[in-house]
Amino acid sequence: MKLALCQTPSPAGDVELALGVIARAARAAAAFGAGMVLFPELFLPGYNQKERLRDLAEPADGPSLARVRAIARETGMAIVTGFAEREGERLYNAVLAIGPDGGTLARFRKLQLFGPTENALFAPGEEHVHFDHAGHRFGLLVCYDVEFPEHVRALARRAVDVVLVPTANMEPYRHVSRILVPARAAENDVTVAYCNYCGEEGDLAYTGLSVIAGPDGEPAAAAGLRGEALLITDLDAIRQIPEEMRSTQLRDLRG
Amino acid sequence: MKLALCQTPSPAGDVELALGVIARAARAAAAFGAGMVLFPELFLPGYNQKERLRDLAEPADGPSLARVRAIARETGMAIVTGFAEREGERLYNAVLAIGPDGGTLARFRKLQLFGPTENALFAPGEEHVHFDHAGHRFGLLVCYDVEFPEHVRALARRAVDVVLVPTANMEPYRHVSRILVPARAAENDVTVAYCNYCGEEGDLAYTGLSVIAGPDGEPAAAAGLRGEALLITDLDAIRQIPEEMRSTQLRDLRG
Repeated sequence: MKLALCQTPSPAGDVELALGVIARAARAAAAFGAGMVLFPELFLPGYNQKERLRDLAEPADGPSLARVRAIARETGMAIVTGFAEREGERLYNAVLAIGPDGGTLARFRKLQLFGPTENALFAPGEEHVHFDHAGHRFGLLVCYDVEFPEHVRALARRAVDVVLVPTANMEPYRHVSRILVPARAAENDVTVAYCNYCGEEGDLAYTGLSVIAGPDGEPAAAAGLRGEALLITDLDAIRQIPEEMRSTQLRDLRG
Repeated sequence: MKLALCQTPSPAGDVELALGVIARAARAAAAFGAGMVLFPELFLPGYNQKERLRDLAEPADGPSLARVRAIARETGMAIVTGFAEREGERLYNAVLAIGPDGGTLARFRKLQLFGPTENALFAPGEEHVHFDHAGHRFGLLVCYDVEFPEHVRALARRAVDVVLVPTANMEPYRHVSRILVPARAAENDVTVAYCNYCGEEGDLAYTGLSVIAGPDGEPAAAAGLRGEALLITDLDAIRQIPEEMRSTQLRDLRG
């Protein structure tokens, strides 16, 4: 299956803008034969909206996500996007994986909240999440989660082969795209798709540098520091690396 | 303007297959708002076809290219592709840039033929070529041409800001994508889009590693070693680099 990744500026609270980007990217990805498209962290409604997120959050069966489900059905694409999830009085920094029929494949809540703003707004998630789709087992993480070797390891132990990571990575943390994400892929024999924003939002400047890193640690597709980008690549081709390049850490780990 | 680049296996003499890829990539690129899409060297009909190329070549107003022109009109996209050009008894390793109206923006013939097979089949081109489109000045080169600093320099002297390079780069020459192409971009304050094949064709294994390198030498979009990929990125965003990162070699060169 081909996977598409959309690096784009934050919609900054404009949910209609976000829905327009999702529709545009999903149609383009479908036209090139992709089966899934990935968007950044909290893409509905945007990452750096602080207290506004309390009003913009909605449950996984809320009205904006109903429109994303309709785009999935219309294009025949799986759509994986960050969103601000409301459940009663609680907010979560969540990801929803929607199937081509518009149904829910999985929902994940960020485990590792980053910094005082996220910790003030959100409750942390409590569990790792994976789902099977189109011949792959996908795991979900958000941003800071993927920096911990433990969380990708936990997904690899469940036989996940592709980890999908909506993110909102800002300057100066370019090493996450360039070093940590490729390391997570190589040490676990998995593919990691890390989908970031570009441009600025309030007091944040995003690093761009979205990347799909293969199990050899090499970028199978990568975007630059600046500018909206759509990357489409083949998840099956990514795994066709020399056998001796595939990590056996899971088998070999002692103690 | 957004530029799309299509890394794809060689059609290996199957012109219908190539036309299908062009249509698919052009429609996807148009759906994401791109204005131009770039394909590899000799994409009509494929690179490593040796003597078969004598039969598969056609003039720039030939029947296969007429179908590419129709795709350009249908999608509203500029399409830049390598092709095997016949002119009388001579063959050229050429590139055709087609505008969104289906007309010819420019035609370029490879200057630096590579190795005995190319030298046996093709006559070399004699001149550098550029054209203006959508607010940019584009230069055209093919594969081995871009490895020479002199040819990119010649285009930069004509105020080209984007160099489009269909290529068919094979193992073990990964340094072209990773080192030479970014160097050409950085030393000339230009963007270089280097569009390669992936996979194998006869006795050749292509390196993939297609890249759009910005004037800071950084990849604005890059594909991996394996697998078909469509990369779409923003040519204007690529140029928004710190002023002190922009090469002044053209102004400063002595002697």
